Amino acid sequence: MIGHAFMGAAHSHAWRTAAHVFDLPLRPVMAVLCGRSVTSATAERLGWKTVASDWQDVVTRDDIDLVDICVPGYLHEPIAVAALGAGKHVLSEKPLANTLAEASRMAAAAGPADATAMVGFNYRRVPAIVRARTLVASGRIGDVREVRASYLQDWLAGPSAPWTWRMSADQAGSGALGDIGSHIIDLAQYLTGSLVSGVSAISETFTKERPGGTVSVDDAVAFTARLSGGALATFEASRVATGRKNGLSIELYGTEGSLAFDLERLNELRVSGQRVLVTEPDDPYLDAWWPPGHVLGWDATFVHQVRDLVTGIADGTDPAPTFADGLAVQRVLDAVARSASNEAVWTATATS
Amino acid sequence: MIGHAFMGAAHSHAWRTAAHVFDLPLRPVMAVLCGRSVTSATAERLGWKTVASDWQDVVTRDDIDLVDICVPGYLHEPIAVAALGAGKHVLSEKPLANTLAEASRMAAAAGPADATAMVGFNYRRVPAIVRARTLVASGRIGDVREVRASYLQDWLAGPSAPWTWRMSADQAGSGALGDIGSHIIDLAQYLTGSLVSGVSAISETFTKERPGGTVSVDDAVAFTARLSGGALATFEASRVATGRKNGLSIELYGTEGSLAFDLERLNELRVSGQRVLVTEPDDPYLDAWWPPGHVLGWDATFVHQVRDLVTGIADGTDPAPTFADGLAVQRVLDAVARSASNEAVWTATATS
Amino acid sequence: MIGHAFMGAAHSHAWRTAAHVFDLPLRPVMAVLCGRSVTSATAERLGWKTVASDWQDVVTRDDIDLVDICVPGYLHEPIAVAALGAGKHVLSEKPLANTLAEASRMAAAAGPADATAMVGFNYRRVPAIVRARTLVASGRIGDVREVRASYLQDWLAGPSAPWTWRMSADQAGSGALGDIGSHIIDLAQYLTGSLVSGVSAISETFTKERPGGTVSVDDAVAFTARLSGGALATFEASRVATGRKNGLSIELYGTEGSLAFDLERLNELRVSGQRVLVTEPDDPYLDAWWPPGHVLGWDATFVHQVRDLVTGIADGTDPAPTFADGLAVQRVLDAVARSASNEAVWTATATS
Amino acid sequence: MIGHAFMGAAHSHAWRTAAHVFDLPLRPVMAVLCGRSVTSATAERLGWKTVASDWQDVVTRDDIDLVDICVPGYLHEPIAVAALGAGKHVLSEKPLANTLAEASRMAAAAGPADATAMVGFNYRRVPAIVRARTLVASGRIGDVREVRASYLQDWLAGPSAPWTWRMSADQAGSGALGDIGSHIIDLAQYLTGSLVSGVSAISETFTKERPGGTVSVDDAVAFTARLSGGALATFEASRVATGRKNGLSIELYGTEGSLAFDLERLNELRVSGQRVLVTEPDDPYLDAWWPPGHVLGWDATFVHQVRDLVTGIADGTDPAPTFADGLAVQRVLDAVARSASNEAVWTATATS
Repeated sequence: MIGHAFMGAAHSHAWRTAAHVFDLPLRPVMAVLCGRSVTSATAERLGWKTVASDWQDVVTRDDIDLVDICVPGYLHEPIAVAALGAGKHVLSEKPLANTLAEASRMAAAAGPADATAMVGFNYRRVPAIVRARTLVASGRIGDVREVRASYLQDWLAGPSAPWTWRMSADQAGSGALGDIGSHIIDLAQYLTGSLVSGVSAISETFTKERPGGTVSVDDAVAFTARLSGGALATFEASRVATGRKNGLSIELYGTEGSLAFDLERLNELRVSGQRVLVTEPDDPYLDAWWPPGHVLGWDATFVHQVRDLVTGIADGTDPAPTFADGLAVQRVLDAVARSASNEAVWTATATS
Repeated sequence: MIGHAFMGAAHSHAWRTAAHVFDLPLRPVMAVLCGRSVTSATAERLGWKTVASDWQDVVTRDDIDLVDICVPGYLHEPIAVAALGAGKHVLSEKPLANTLAEASRMAAAAGPADATAMVGFNYRRVPAIVRARTLVASGRIGDVREVRASYLQDWLAGPSAPWTWRMSADQAGSGALGDIGSHIIDLAQYLTGSLVSGVSAISETFTKERPGGTVSVDDAVAFTARLSGGALATFEASRVATGRKNGLSIELYGTEGSLAFDLERLNELRVSGQRVLVTEPDDPYLDAWWPPGHVLGWDATFVHQVRDLVTGIADGTDPAPTFADGLAVQRVLDAVARSASNEAVWTATATS
Repeated sequence: MIGHAFMGAAHSHAWRTAAHVFDLPLRPVMAVLCGRSVTSATAERLGWKTVASDWQDVVTRDDIDLVDICVPGYLHEPIAVAALGAGKHVLSEKPLANTLAEASRMAAAAGPADATAMVGFNYRRVPAIVRARTLVASGRIGDVREVRASYLQDWLAGPSAPWTWRMSADQAGSGALGDIGSHIIDLAQYLTGSLVSGVSAISETFTKERPGGTVSVDDAVAFTARLSGGALATFEASRVATGRKNGLSIELYGTEGSLAFDLERLNELRVSGQRVLVTEPDDPYLDAWWPPGHVLGWDATFVHQVRDLVTGIADGTDPAPTFADGLAVQRVLDAVARSASNEAVWTATATS
Repeated sequence: MIGHAFMGAAHSHAWRTAAHVFDLPLRPVMAVLCGRSVTSATAERLGWKTVASDWQDVVTRDDIDLVDICVPGYLHEPIAVAALGAGKHVLSEKPLANTLAEASRMAAAAGPADATAMVGFNYRRVPAIVRARTLVASGRIGDVREVRASYLQDWLAGPSAPWTWRMSADQAGSGALGDIGSHIIDLAQYLTGSLVSGVSAISETFTKERPGGTVSVDDAVAFTARLSGGALATFEASRVATGRKNGLSIELYGTEGSLAFDLERLNELRVSGQRVLVTEPDDPYLDAWWPPGHVLGWDATFVHQVRDLVTGIADGTDPAPTFADGLAVQRVLDAVARSASNEAVWTATATS
């Protein structure tokens, strides 16, 4: 694993746990934790056997079968391309890359590779989301006509929140758009089985200087969109929505019914207004966990991600979301950014 | 009162009730109900003394002091201008008119008149909304940065819902946009004290032929907007949001806190996440009603509207929302329609 | 109408409104408002033609057909018995009386009378409650096994709330028990179609002296019960539940499903977990009101009560809740009071 | 660890995870999994090094420092007393025992022991519950006057759910009462800092024969109670509350405010009506987990339990809930059972 901050901790938890919860076809060995200044104490705490400081050495080592990329976005492409080139399986954090060009190269590298490549849109592994997708695919809500999606956080609401790499266009690509907007774009495309075909966006950086640096990315972005299946959609991503901590909400209205999901109530799904607790043994992933009503946490999504990735590796398949899925999101991010820089001019999503 | 359908019934209820609940400076007398085919039985049921069939006769009668307009939008302007010209007070249902030109003429007629003119954006009379406005104006949530508003209904979700005048561009001006979108535009402007300065909109008519006629208005519309105070906003109005009956929701995120309101829970307000039941004696209008916790219904908003209108007449003032406020909404409706017809091209709201 | 305080205002609103909303078989005339010190101004405000000061004169007047009793409980019995004796129809506020003996006399007077007698358990007229009853009666939730009911207010939470007649055992009979506990007992019996067969109760008066007098009734009461149909039940009524304004909640768990209702969300019903907005034209009473999603307030329950009472008078029937139904609640109140005075000793409800 | 079913899996997850999330003073080694027919495959899956079949051998082994008891209640006392006698630390699942006599012997054995003994009321480790306790202890809601607690499940609602040891009085002691009622009794005592001083209970076994055996325990129990601090309380525990999967709810009303918690929304607390998401770094346990808004699951409570237990062992203390706390719950269970068998006769909790 390259990287050992917030996402590194979540991924480590998943690598430690998956084989104890699920019946995996392969047994993960947590070989090496890589970071420029990572210590053995950190590695031990997170469950890794050894440490390394240079990702270029690690991705070609013979004893490494899979590279898990948990570093800022500008490093995704070089690491992933090198690892795939060395025949390693790859799991990359989201969004796939900082730019459409980088994402295209990653997808190009993944396509023909024998190795498995996956992008970490972990919310596809929320049991309620999987169940929602199944309901849409089975026609339960008919044709989807409207999608309302928002991802609202507030950690940048105050002016004194310090600058980090996530506020740098060079390192992060964009702000709320790529970091959390990418999740709701992916979910909208996944749940509907459609692609976003065009967008109109506005964005704002409310606080331009922060302790430690200049903010070069958006604080908040809002856009309308059309989906290839004919639906209208609205999206909003914000890091300044006071009082909302991690408020991902997505609603789908179809000709026959509706679905609604809110991440702060991760174990629930609203199906045409009915609150369903998605903790039954026949719900996705649930037979491996606890009896009905014993709720899962956010961290379980990463455990499910490891399960599906390892299963894909054993099968020789690329489990969704593949790098191609990640590229499909990147095309929308790119269109949104271009539209926002032209104050909402309608911008078609690139199709190749 | 001109008109005697849904809105006519709600207004009649209010005219009958207001003087029994509030201490009014003037006592309303429900003189005449006007409609092309209205019966005495209907008038008696709704509480009116007599009937008339021609609005042109009624608006100039000496025994009439106030004209309440509850007819389709295309008739608002001729009736209101005639009534104001005859020195009558006017209450017009919303939106103010079908076109910006009509609305401008109405505001022009109202401005210099001695009479009082008011437009019926009744949700300004929800106690929770008044309280929300007071909180914003007092700085409780700081500067407003994001507004999320939606008004979702589903009575046109199925293809067999019959055609009515509300689906005719000639008679209604627009569809979901003017009928219910106008409410959330007005609320956003009222609550923030800002104007919508520009919009980018998309819209759709999902069902183009209905039993009884061709649909010439939108089923659903979504748009992003900027407000003069600097906030980003998203709006969505729909008559095809399956499962939502009368779902008006508006959220404001400011630098210091947030507010959220949902019409299906008309007596509640969320203030920075706290659910407040707005039924205390010191809440707006509430001292005239019941003890705390005894909830009001949708019809109470019209009773409050009558109270404020009658008080304005006694004072010689135009209580908000005035025809100028109605015009400010109409400018946004016009910009939205133009943007939508150009697939989301950014469209500034007219400023004069 | 005898009495003109809180309940008098709510009843007056209903008498004024019912004939304008519903198609009534008889037209109510609001003849006289009676109270020891009632003024003409109050009568006019509430909609009554004349005033009187002595109920004994009023209940025998030839021009009076119906007596509506909105005074403290200790006066229910003498007024109702006198009015029924004079051949008048009677509507009595709840609970039926202060004591089981008084209630028995009232029911005895009502039974053989030609007149119609009804007790004002108005929550039976909430559309969601009627719908819930219909669902239970049709077997939708199977056999009811558990009932959880509570009615929580907080207007006596602070020690400085002044003494009123509602805190006097002589005038009110009991405290939270009779005033609001009677509502949930009636609803439990109505919704299940069963009677409470026995109870075990504890109660408390947390503040024994208040500005203006000594409190001789309970602040809060809690009891378990068995219903004749085999269900277990818990009840709690309180005037000191800080933060709860008018929080009536009742849940039923049956062999096939569940129902839940909360008065603060008067237009909603939870049916086996599904939130249903009870505002459709085929919901009880709703065809006379507004389109779907336009919510009713607490005051509508009294309008419905007038409708059903007037219809009963025209039909020559006693619409439920009859005085016999009121007596069935009084038997439970009596059992609860006896159990509480013996610290929860199991107390069978009287059966005659 | 003795036992390897549902609770065994949850405890194993916690033993595997705690040292990777928290900075523990001692490092747990998962030495041996004990069960009459446990396999090496199960042990490996759950993370244990070896297996054993006889608990009597295991509890005295030199290489064992701590015994974690996850077996039916009738075995708690012999295992715990033997383990404590051999100088081992003990973690026992809840309730502490099947009978008051057994629980007394366990507490007697734990008191003078050098070893640490803890009972697994894991909901004390929900961050929102810890925060609630802190708020009560600091006087935030004043004196607690009313407690409403319920724990509702529905896995026995249907008659075809098969018999298990949990339906046997011999093996489980009681039914819903001990299994889940014990949790809400413990929470009520923990949150208020009071003891239940007396109870009045009714209970029912709705389905007396099930596939595989005769049910000798309660399906549902309801009781009123008084707390030593002066509060009234109601409790209800049920396995037949159709539609409720794991619905633990507890509300406290004090002189200055209120608290409410619902286990299905484990990361939330209602503080005087305000919904608080308990996921901030200064919330209990949270600094070791994820950023705000990333919710924890039910399993995290066991991880926290291991952290506190291991810390207690290092400190030489008995972290709450101690066996004495478990005994305090058992006294209430015993009083409830006696009251229920006498149809709600008021029963004082034993005080020694």
